[in-house]
Amino acid sequence: MASNSFGSFLKLTTYGESHGVSIGGILDGVPPGIQLDLDKIQLEMDRRKPGQSSIVTQRKESDIVHFKSGIFEGITTGLPIGFEIQNTDNKSNDYGHIKDVFRPNHADYTYDQKYGQRDHRGGGRSSARETASWVVAGAIAKQILSDVKFTAYTHAVGALELTAKDTVDFDVIEKNPVRCPNEKVASQMEDYIRQIRKEGDTIGGIVKCVISNVPKNLGDPIFEKLHANLGKAMMTINAVKGFDYGSGFEGVSMRGSEHNDLFNTDGSTKTNHSGGIQGGISNGMDITFRVAFKPVATLMQKQQTINKNAEEVEMQGKGRHDPCVVPRAIPVVEAMSALVLADAYLLNKSIH
Amino acid sequence: MASNSFGSFLKLTTYGESHGVSIGGILDGVPPGIQLDLDKIQLEMDRRKPGQSSIVTQRKESDIVHFKSGIFEGITTGLPIGFEIQNTDNKSNDYGHIKDVFRPNHADYTYDQKYGQRDHRGGGRSSARETASWVVAGAIAKQILSDVKFTAYTHAVGALELTAKDTVDFDVIEKNPVRCPNEKVASQMEDYIRQIRKEGDTIGGIVKCVISNVPKNLGDPIFEKLHANLGKAMMTINAVKGFDYGSGFEGVSMRGSEHNDLFNTDGSTKTNHSGGIQGGISNGMDITFRVAFKPVATLMQKQQTINKNAEEVEMQGKGRHDPCVVPRAIPVVEAMSALVLADAYLLNKSIH
Amino acid sequence: MASNSFGSFLKLTTYGESHGVSIGGILDGVPPGIQLDLDKIQLEMDRRKPGQSSIVTQRKESDIVHFKSGIFEGITTGLPIGFEIQNTDNKSNDYGHIKDVFRPNHADYTYDQKYGQRDHRGGGRSSARETASWVVAGAIAKQILSDVKFTAYTHAVGALELTAKDTVDFDVIEKNPVRCPNEKVASQMEDYIRQIRKEGDTIGGIVKCVISNVPKNLGDPIFEKLHANLGKAMMTINAVKGFDYGSGFEGVSMRGSEHNDLFNTDGSTKTNHSGGIQGGISNGMDITFRVAFKPVATLMQKQQTINKNAEEVEMQGKGRHDPCVVPRAIPVVEAMSALVLADAYLLNKSIH
Amino acid sequence: MASNSFGSFLKLTTYGESHGVSIGGILDGVPPGIQLDLDKIQLEMDRRKPGQSSIVTQRKESDIVHFKSGIFEGITTGLPIGFEIQNTDNKSNDYGHIKDVFRPNHADYTYDQKYGQRDHRGGGRSSARETASWVVAGAIAKQILSDVKFTAYTHAVGALELTAKDTVDFDVIEKNPVRCPNEKVASQMEDYIRQIRKEGDTIGGIVKCVISNVPKNLGDPIFEKLHANLGKAMMTINAVKGFDYGSGFEGVSMRGSEHNDLFNTDGSTKTNHSGGIQGGISNGMDITFRVAFKPVATLMQKQQTINKNAEEVEMQGKGRHDPCVVPRAIPVVEAMSALVLADAYLLNKSIH
Repeated sequence: MASNSFGSFLKLTTYGESHGVSIGGILDGVPPGIQLDLDKIQLEMDRRKPGQSSIVTQRKESDIVHFKSGIFEGITTGLPIGFEIQNTDNKSNDYGHIKDVFRPNHADYTYDQKYGQRDHRGGGRSSARETASWVVAGAIAKQILSDVKFTAYTHAVGALELTAKDTVDFDVIEKNPVRCPNEKVASQMEDYIRQIRKEGDTIGGIVKCVISNVPKNLGDPIFEKLHANLGKAMMTINAVKGFDYGSGFEGVSMRGSEHNDLFNTDGSTKTNHSGGIQGGISNGMDITFRVAFKPVATLMQKQQTINKNAEEVEMQGKGRHDPCVVPRAIPVVEAMSALVLADAYLLNKSIH
Repeated sequence: MASNSFGSFLKLTTYGESHGVSIGGILDGVPPGIQLDLDKIQLEMDRRKPGQSSIVTQRKESDIVHFKSGIFEGITTGLPIGFEIQNTDNKSNDYGHIKDVFRPNHADYTYDQKYGQRDHRGGGRSSARETASWVVAGAIAKQILSDVKFTAYTHAVGALELTAKDTVDFDVIEKNPVRCPNEKVASQMEDYIRQIRKEGDTIGGIVKCVISNVPKNLGDPIFEKLHANLGKAMMTINAVKGFDYGSGFEGVSMRGSEHNDLFNTDGSTKTNHSGGIQGGISNGMDITFRVAFKPVATLMQKQQTINKNAEEVEMQGKGRHDPCVVPRAIPVVEAMSALVLADAYLLNKSIH
Repeated sequence: MASNSFGSFLKLTTYGESHGVSIGGILDGVPPGIQLDLDKIQLEMDRRKPGQSSIVTQRKESDIVHFKSGIFEGITTGLPIGFEIQNTDNKSNDYGHIKDVFRPNHADYTYDQKYGQRDHRGGGRSSARETASWVVAGAIAKQILSDVKFTAYTHAVGALELTAKDTVDFDVIEKNPVRCPNEKVASQMEDYIRQIRKEGDTIGGIVKCVISNVPKNLGDPIFEKLHANLGKAMMTINAVKGFDYGSGFEGVSMRGSEHNDLFNTDGSTKTNHSGGIQGGISNGMDITFRVAFKPVATLMQKQQTINKNAEEVEMQGKGRHDPCVVPRAIPVVEAMSALVLADAYLLNKSIH
Repeated sequence: MASNSFGSFLKLTTYGESHGVSIGGILDGVPPGIQLDLDKIQLEMDRRKPGQSSIVTQRKESDIVHFKSGIFEGITTGLPIGFEIQNTDNKSNDYGHIKDVFRPNHADYTYDQKYGQRDHRGGGRSSARETASWVVAGAIAKQILSDVKFTAYTHAVGALELTAKDTVDFDVIEKNPVRCPNEKVASQMEDYIRQIRKEGDTIGGIVKCVISNVPKNLGDPIFEKLHANLGKAMMTINAVKGFDYGSGFEGVSMRGSEHNDLFNTDGSTKTNHSGGIQGGISNGMDITFRVAFKPVATLMQKQQTINKNAEEVEMQGKGRHDPCVVPRAIPVVEAMSALVLADAYLLNKSIH
């Protein structure tokens, strides 16, 4: 096991369950001498936290990060940064009804099989509440890579997606609750999610991410390719079912003569089907990828399921849940991307 | 760096360049007491090796594996298995023309930037020849998991793909050079690849993989989820641009009420949108995923590119290359899957 | 970096400085289903904590462990155990005088060189306060290995050491402040330490450790030999300068015919110069080793030293320090041993 | 398991048994652009190889290293260096008599218990033949750290040791078969070993190592302290029973006022009881340590032992063995030291 660490050089280790005392982690490998902007870290927390709008879960968490170590007089010391986020609005009573029930498409059944027992409250460790710790670490990683710009946004909600003719304006993203870079489509998506919620149902979506001003030389052959680590990081996010980068699944039906990115004499390329990564190593072009999220499994409808005694039971979701996870996943996608790139960046220093 | 190892518990470390003396590796963590079937290992090598049909590269490699250690009187000893595959048909002369040239969408430019120099012959370490070592290790992993069945096949060549109404017969896969489980579609795909090759061009494709008879409890929260490790493994394969599992990118437009897999009382599920993995842990259902491959970058056409002196030059692929990488990628997808599952299987033993 | 984790399978990651908010850690890889005895954990903390007697530092810390996760209804869940220990009696004012001064034989100079700056208060991260977190983890490791008995004790204080004719009674260890298993020698050692303290000086010592009822098969060739991991663990403890096991440095002058441990027919051995480990793997005999501690570097005397500006300055230790570190190191030696053995124990499960 | 790798950043993975086809390894993480001096590597191999003089084993191995990858036109590429050493003089017939016998103080019994079976020939994987691969890797590590000087030598053979009044001349070391830096004592040691051999017996010894011109800042708190990694590396060498550094076990009986190394204004210290490492990090002073070796377990005498059927049997060593392992261990001590320091050196680059 010992599976609760992420990264090799910049390493995040986390703990905590959705309804325990707190969640938190230790970020090890942060270089010394960085003047950390704690407000920026909290800002990222606020982007992720529940209860921001009517289309997300109404759980209220202040999500204030408490740092314990590794920062002295505002500056990183090169030593591990311990941090903690209290669970304040953990209405565990909401979960009595699922104590012995396996909710469909949750981790209830598999955790129970693997570990023999579990903290069932709010999904315990399998809850997406865990991602709050990732956002803390990712916000620090962004400050390690202060010149790099990470922009994730909602590309699709269900079948409703941005098309080639929709303009994309990154300045719009944080101005609408869906985090879509086109106001008109954002408004349609918002209506759609509201409709889904009203029906007690949920819907999937796609996040796109563009990372610009990327240093060259990030990523290592053979088994630490930059896109492979980005892919793993994205697949690690709750509810993610797919990942592709650059031309991705669309590249499948292209011919080589069309897909190849021809060079400019400065080493940049005229097109970017490669998505900023060639042979597993960044080439300085924008890194682009997509992440597919399934519909949230908790429904506000009755569902047939089974309990620990292998009996069929009927259950209905209570608690506070997101009808579509994508808007709140945006800062998580950015955070995990920042962790992957910062790790590769620090590793790369050894050879230069 | 030290990035040439894969797996935590069952760990493969590899070395070698396409046109060096040999490639090979060390597989560490194989349990003792397994009577290895060496013929089965060689069979997997033969499935991957070049020159098998007219639609793949004509490089001829005998690809005989030489084992050096870790097997005593035919039985694994629990100690590392060293192995080597000679590079016999390495016509390095074929590559003089690319010595100082950066081929589009290869790793030439990024390796050169990162390392300052490189073995340019046949792509050196970035060549897919490396995957021969993975197939050796994967074939051993399959014998560790002797009850599990790994079946990968060609789902699409370019836009030509199996549809819902095409029958899928696994027994057909190895009987056609495309490795498609439907004879009629296979024949169309073969013709299509032949046409592409004639034009000196290349085309992408999609591999599907079904893993059946999977033990429960494989995979670990939070950062060693089974599907995240499968995703990383697939993204590690040369030319892969995307990965999804279970409902994947299609799941995006489904509603939760439709997507949730309802339980049977034995813990199995009536549908399998989860793709055999819930909360990162196998639930005993079939594991299913897709892998997207881009078109091969080496064309038998003239292309504009640049050289080390940042001058524009014209180049044309020589050497022996695949017009579509998918048929030969099938055993590689299986091998990497087997490594991921065997690693998770051995790790899981610690808690039971 | 990322050097603040210990163990591969049972992995402890720690954070914290001597005079920060708190210290703590995350213990990952604890098997599920263990009914943890929290009192026993606190008892180990009490054995290590300062202020227990007149021969140790008078810093007062309640050293109460707060668990955050991984334990549900008193039972381990198999998920990471987060814990925190508040720093309550951190009189940082005591340390103003060393802000810009490099204390001899401390980590002040090397930390400053490596990181460019540091939390100077009480040695910051380099303080032995860190070992409190190790004791928490070690106490849990002991409960994983509930049948194994770890007994460390004071073998020597300076040149005053147990000789072959002194009886050794483990029941006596916790009944005297020196933790020596012979009352008479304990009393001499106590007097000696008191004398050293009066002179404002410090003295080294040797800890011996006996681990009995050890399962066979712990440890792995080639680079995870059990004694090599024990050695590393011991060398990790603050102020340790040496380690040997079994016959150790004394074995050097023995002949093979005298040193070889002859077998009984049940596989046990008539002598135990091997110290319970052969070829890096436990053989079921008692594991025995010694750990050498240097004299504590902080003196209550004037010393010449230098400051950040490379100027000679005179300094005198303030704060509260141990004249001899050995008595309080006893539970730390046991804790680190337990972590090493539990890690090896869990790893070994994969092959059986 | 997966325990056959050493180092985190510069990582050596090895395979092979004493009497298999070959031994070898993969050294990953070597920086690109180093013009490797292959003769120097072979020279180190020659220092270690058997049959060099009448006081070591008469096994004859040419021990020529064959490199497979990672070096292009004489220069390292930054990619893994695969290498192989053939086992040519593996007289397996010599070992028929120990097939089912557990030799005292060897790894026979523990390997058999752990793995259920083993390659018994010459100790299989537990043989010190493995160290030939370490010497290859260490010789490359020395070239990464081309300014650092590693000097190991024989300090004691049995009770016969260099005393404070014996001059130490490093130039003498390679000029006598014992590798002692004092000709007169060397000659006494040689006579003593010859006498021991004549009696069919074996004897232990102590190696000292001095590493000079060491860069500052090597080593990382808390769990990757430089001396802890050196200690682990030394404890990994076959037959090693103890390790200490700087003042070591002698420091135990010193007072702090005597032991503290006072600073010069340039940060160097007037004495070096610290052994070049403070707080786990190199301070630029010489690194000094001792390694204790037990007497070789294989005797040319009759010994009582047991076999697989738990029967008492009598055995006598055949084969070709060293009466004292220390002279041939010298290059191994240096090699492992170089691996540890080079790893720390590359890691340290990430923060500067």
